[in-house]
Amino acid sequence: MQIITEKLVSKTIKKRASNTHKGSFGRVLTVGGNAQFGGAIILSSSAAVYSGCGLVTTATDPTNFASLHARLPEAMVIDFNAGQELTEMLAKVDAVVIGPGLGEDAKALQTLTLVFKTIRAEQILIIDGSAIDLIASHHLALPNAKLIFTPHEMEWQRLSGIPIGQQSEAKNKVVQQELNGIVVLKKHHTEIYTDEKTFQLHLGGPEMATGGMGDTLTGMIAAFSTQFSSELVAAVVSATYVHSFIADQLGKTQYVTLPHQIIEHIPQAMAHFAASKTNA
Amino acid sequence: MQIITEKLVSKTIKKRASNTHKGSFGRVLTVGGNAQFGGAIILSSSAAVYSGCGLVTTATDPTNFASLHARLPEAMVIDFNAGQELTEMLAKVDAVVIGPGLGEDAKALQTLTLVFKTIRAEQILIIDGSAIDLIASHHLALPNAKLIFTPHEMEWQRLSGIPIGQQSEAKNKVVQQELNGIVVLKKHHTEIYTDEKTFQLHLGGPEMATGGMGDTLTGMIAAFSTQFSSELVAAVVSATYVHSFIADQLGKTQYVTLPHQIIEHIPQAMAHFAASKTNA
Amino acid sequence: MQIITEKLVSKTIKKRASNTHKGSFGRVLTVGGNAQFGGAIILSSSAAVYSGCGLVTTATDPTNFASLHARLPEAMVIDFNAGQELTEMLAKVDAVVIGPGLGEDAKALQTLTLVFKTIRAEQILIIDGSAIDLIASHHLALPNAKLIFTPHEMEWQRLSGIPIGQQSEAKNKVVQQELNGIVVLKKHHTEIYTDEKTFQLHLGGPEMATGGMGDTLTGMIAAFSTQFSSELVAAVVSATYVHSFIADQLGKTQYVTLPHQIIEHIPQAMAHFAASKTNA
Amino acid sequence: MQIITEKLVSKTIKKRASNTHKGSFGRVLTVGGNAQFGGAIILSSSAAVYSGCGLVTTATDPTNFASLHARLPEAMVIDFNAGQELTEMLAKVDAVVIGPGLGEDAKALQTLTLVFKTIRAEQILIIDGSAIDLIASHHLALPNAKLIFTPHEMEWQRLSGIPIGQQSEAKNKVVQQELNGIVVLKKHHTEIYTDEKTFQLHLGGPEMATGGMGDTLTGMIAAFSTQFSSELVAAVVSATYVHSFIADQLGKTQYVTLPHQIIEHIPQAMAHFAASKTNA
Repeated sequence: MQIITEKLVSKTIKKRASNTHKGSFGRVLTVGGNAQFGGAIILSSSAAVYSGCGLVTTATDPTNFASLHARLPEAMVIDFNAGQELTEMLAKVDAVVIGPGLGEDAKALQTLTLVFKTIRAEQILIIDGSAIDLIASHHLALPNAKLIFTPHEMEWQRLSGIPIGQQSEAKNKVVQQELNGIVVLKKHHTEIYTDEKTFQLHLGGPEMATGGMGDTLTGMIAAFSTQFSSELVAAVVSATYVHSFIADQLGKTQYVTLPHQIIEHIPQAMAHFAASKTNA
Repeated sequence: MQIITEKLVSKTIKKRASNTHKGSFGRVLTVGGNAQFGGAIILSSSAAVYSGCGLVTTATDPTNFASLHARLPEAMVIDFNAGQELTEMLAKVDAVVIGPGLGEDAKALQTLTLVFKTIRAEQILIIDGSAIDLIASHHLALPNAKLIFTPHEMEWQRLSGIPIGQQSEAKNKVVQQELNGIVVLKKHHTEIYTDEKTFQLHLGGPEMATGGMGDTLTGMIAAFSTQFSSELVAAVVSATYVHSFIADQLGKTQYVTLPHQIIEHIPQAMAHFAASKTNA
Repeated sequence: MQIITEKLVSKTIKKRASNTHKGSFGRVLTVGGNAQFGGAIILSSSAAVYSGCGLVTTATDPTNFASLHARLPEAMVIDFNAGQELTEMLAKVDAVVIGPGLGEDAKALQTLTLVFKTIRAEQILIIDGSAIDLIASHHLALPNAKLIFTPHEMEWQRLSGIPIGQQSEAKNKVVQQELNGIVVLKKHHTEIYTDEKTFQLHLGGPEMATGGMGDTLTGMIAAFSTQFSSELVAAVVSATYVHSFIADQLGKTQYVTLPHQIIEHIPQAMAHFAASKTNA
Repeated sequence: MQIITEKLVSKTIKKRASNTHKGSFGRVLTVGGNAQFGGAIILSSSAAVYSGCGLVTTATDPTNFASLHARLPEAMVIDFNAGQELTEMLAKVDAVVIGPGLGEDAKALQTLTLVFKTIRAEQILIIDGSAIDLIASHHLALPNAKLIFTPHEMEWQRLSGIPIGQQSEAKNKVVQQELNGIVVLKKHHTEIYTDEKTFQLHLGGPEMATGGMGDTLTGMIAAFSTQFSSELVAAVVSATYVHSFIADQLGKTQYVTLPHQIIEHIPQAMAHFAASKTNA
C-alpha cells in the first residue's frame, strides 16, 4: 500500500483561479437525516460547504430544516420524501452523498432506490452508513455512476461478506473491483482501494472515535471531488487525509475532537495545503 | 471605469454622531426565503443587522422563523405570505431587499408584485436573485423607487438581454439607464453602473465563490443605504467594497470564506474605515 | 443629577459567598416574544442568565421555544398564552420582566393584565417596550410591586404625557413619583429617576443604537435586582452602567455592537467590577 | 472523607489506545426534557458528547429535536413518549441518564417507570433531578442496575428523608447503603458516597450557582462511566472533579460560568489530565 503523503494532498488542492464563480466548484446534494438521525446529514452538508463546494443542497426529513439552517444558512433544503423534487435536484448536481442518518426503514429504501435509479454515469455518488447496510441487506444492484463507498469495518463486512478479522488487502481489492468504485475503508490506518493503487492513511488518532466523524468525511469527499474532479482518486485520498490531519492538530489539546470542530477548521487546512503546494 | 478606492469608502462610512438612536440608522425589510431557500434570507438579514441598520424585519416563510431567530435574535419576522402584514410593514421602512431565496413559483411572483405595487418613490429597493429572474421571465414593469439591482452575469443576461460574452460597459450602461436604477453586476471585478460614473471593484478573490455570498451583499447594501442615505451611490459602492475587503482579509488563511464569516466581521471592518476617514 | 461612577458599580456587584447555590441568586421570569418579536425575549432572557440569575424562565409564544433553546439551553420555557401556567410561575419568582416583544394586540393586553393582577408587593416588576405602550394606550392601573420602567424617550412621552423636547429632570421627577417606581429613561446620557436621587449615565455611544439593546438591558436589570436585592436602586443603576460599559469596550473596534455580543461579555465585566471593589 | 485529588483524576482519565473506534467508548442514552425543560436534556447530552462518549442518543419530547440538533448535531434523538422506541434503545446502551428536565407529571412517571422496568443489571443508570423527586414522592422501587444518584441537598432530603441541616456523613452513608448505589450529593464541597470510601470535592465556587449545572454533570458522569468503566467509582469521582475544575478555571475571569461554557472546555480539560497522568 502507498502511504498518503502531504505532498500528494498539496498537489491536489489547487489554488483557485481568479476568474471563477460558485458554479465553478460544483454542486453537491446530500441525502439523509431521518427524524432520528438529522445530525448526521447536518454534519455531512456542513463539511461540504466548509470544504468549498459552491452550492450544497440537503435532501432530508423536514423536521431537520430548522436545525440545519440554524447551523448552516449556506445550504439549501428539500424534503427527501418528495420524489419529484428529489428527482429534479438529482439532475442538477455533480456529486451526491447518500446515507448519513438515512436509516434503514421502508422510506429510506425508497429514497435510496430513487437515487440509484436517477443517478447518471458521469455523476459522483458517495455511499455511506445506512445506504451501505441497505445495499447489503436488500442485495441492491449498484447504479452506473462514479461510486465511492465509505464503510467502516463492520459495514464493509456486511457489504463485502469478508469478516472483520479477515479483511486483507488482497480480499478487499477483489470486492472493490466487483463494486467498480473507490472504497474508503475507515479504521485505524484507513485504507483506500481504487482501480490502481491502494492507499493507507497514517494520520488520525483515537480522539476521532466519536459519532458523526464518518458523516463529516462524506461531505468533504463530495466537495473535494467536485472541485478537483480531474483526478477523482486524488480528491478522495486528499479529503480523507485532511479530515484526519485536522483531527490530529486539534487532538494535541483535546481528548476528543468533535465533528463540527473538524468542519470549522477545513478552510484553514485547505489553505495550508494549497499554499504549500508550490514547494512540493 | 473608476476603480473603487479605500478613500471613497472611508469618506462614506461616517463616524456616528453621539446623539443618535436606533431610528437614526434606518429600517430595513428583507423579503425572501421560501421553504427551500431559507438560508438566503437569514444571510441577507444578518448582514443588514451587522452592518448597523437600526431595525431589521424579515418577511419570510414561517418555516424559517426558528432558524432565523436562533442565529439572529436582533431581527423581527413576519410571514411573507400574509399580504396585509407585508403591506403594513412596507409602509414603515426605508429600504427593502427582495429576492434572496424567494423562489420563482406563483407565491413568489405574488409577493414580488405586492412589493412592486406598494413601494414608494422615496424608498430604496434592492432587487436580487429570484426577483431579477421573475422580472425577466414575466416582463414585470418596474416600480417607481430608488432601485438597486444586484445580478450576477447570468441574471444580468436574463434581465438585460445581453449575452454573457457581450456584456460590455457601453451596452450595460444603456440598460442601466433604461432600468433607471443602480446596477451592481457581480463578477470577477464587479462593476457598478450608476447614472453618473461606472465603478469597478478590484478586490475579491475566488475564496468568495460560494453560495450565499450575493445574499449577504444585499443586506449590506440595504444597511449602508439607510445609514449613508445622502449619497446612495457611495453607499452602494462602499458596501460592495467592504464585502470583498473582508473576504480578502479572511482569504489570507482560508481556502473558502463562508458568508456568515463575512457577516461576523462587518462591525470591525466598518470601524476600520470610519476611523481611517480622518486621514483620507 | 449624580453621574454614575465605577465606584458605585463596584460596591454593588458583591463577590459571591462560597456557600451559595442557584437559589441564592434569585428567580427571574421574562414575559414577551409574540410570533413576530421572539428575538426580543430571547435577548432579555439571555441577558438575565449571563448576568448570573440562578434560574430564568421565559414565558413566550411556543413558536419561540426552539430558537430560544438553541441559543440558551440554560433557560426554561412556558407558553405565555396559558393563563394557569403563567399564574403558577409568577408565584415562584423574585423578579418579572414584561414587555420585550410582547406586542400590543388583545393577547398581549391579556397577558399584561394577568401579570399586573398576579404580581405581589414584594416582587420586582420591570416594565418595558410594548408593556409601557399598553399602559399608556389603555390607561391601565399599575400594580402594587417594586416597579421599574425602562422607556426610551418616545415611550416616556406616551407614558408620562411629557413631549420629548420638554422632558426635563423636574417634570420627569414628578411623574416618577406618581408612578411610584424607578424610571430608567433610555437616551443619550440615560437618566435614572428614583425616590431619592436622579442618576445620569455618561457611558454608551452610538454603537449601541440598534434593535434589541433595550431588551438586553431588561434582563440585566432583572438579574442584578435579584442578586443585589438589598439595594434595588444600586442594582438598577449598576446594570445600566455595565450594559453601556461593555458596549463602549466593544465599540473601540466595532462600528455597531450587537445585543448578543454585549450579553456574551457580561460575566467578564461583572468579574471586573467585583474584583475592583476591594480597592474602591 | 477523602479529598479528591488531581492525581486520582489523572490516573482515571486514560490515554486512549490507538486501535479504537466510537464503539470502544460506550453508548449513552439521556432521557428527559419535556416541553418546558428541554434545555436541561440538551446540556446533559452535550456534556456526554464533549466528554468523549462514542455515541449519544437523546430521548426527549419532539419539541426539543430542532434546538438539540441546532446545538449538537453529534447526538441522535428519539421521542421519549414512544414506549417501543425507548425500550429498544435502552437495550443498546451502556449508560442511561434519567431526569434532567423530565418533569414530574404522569408522562414523566410513565417514562421513568419504563426505564426502571427495562434497565439491566450490568447497565449504569444515573438518576437526577425530577427522577429523584418522582422516586421520593411515589415511593418507587429501585431497579437492579449500577445506580448513581446526583441529588442536591433538597432532593437528597426528599429521597433520604434526612433534613438538610442533619445530612451528616454517617446518616448519608446509611441511606447510600440502602439505595445500593453511588450518591453524588451536590453542595458546597460536594460529597460522593460509595460502598467503600466517601469522597469530598474541594473545588467549585459560587460562579457555578446557576441553572443547568447539575444537568451538565449527569452527562459527564455518563460518559466518564462508559469510558473508564473498569473503575466506576473513580469515573464518577473524576467527572465531578473535572466539572468543577473547569468552572474554577473560567471563574477566574467570569462572575458566573454558564453550563454550556463548561461543556465546551471538557475536551481540553480531559486532555490536560490524561497528559499529566504519566507524572502522577
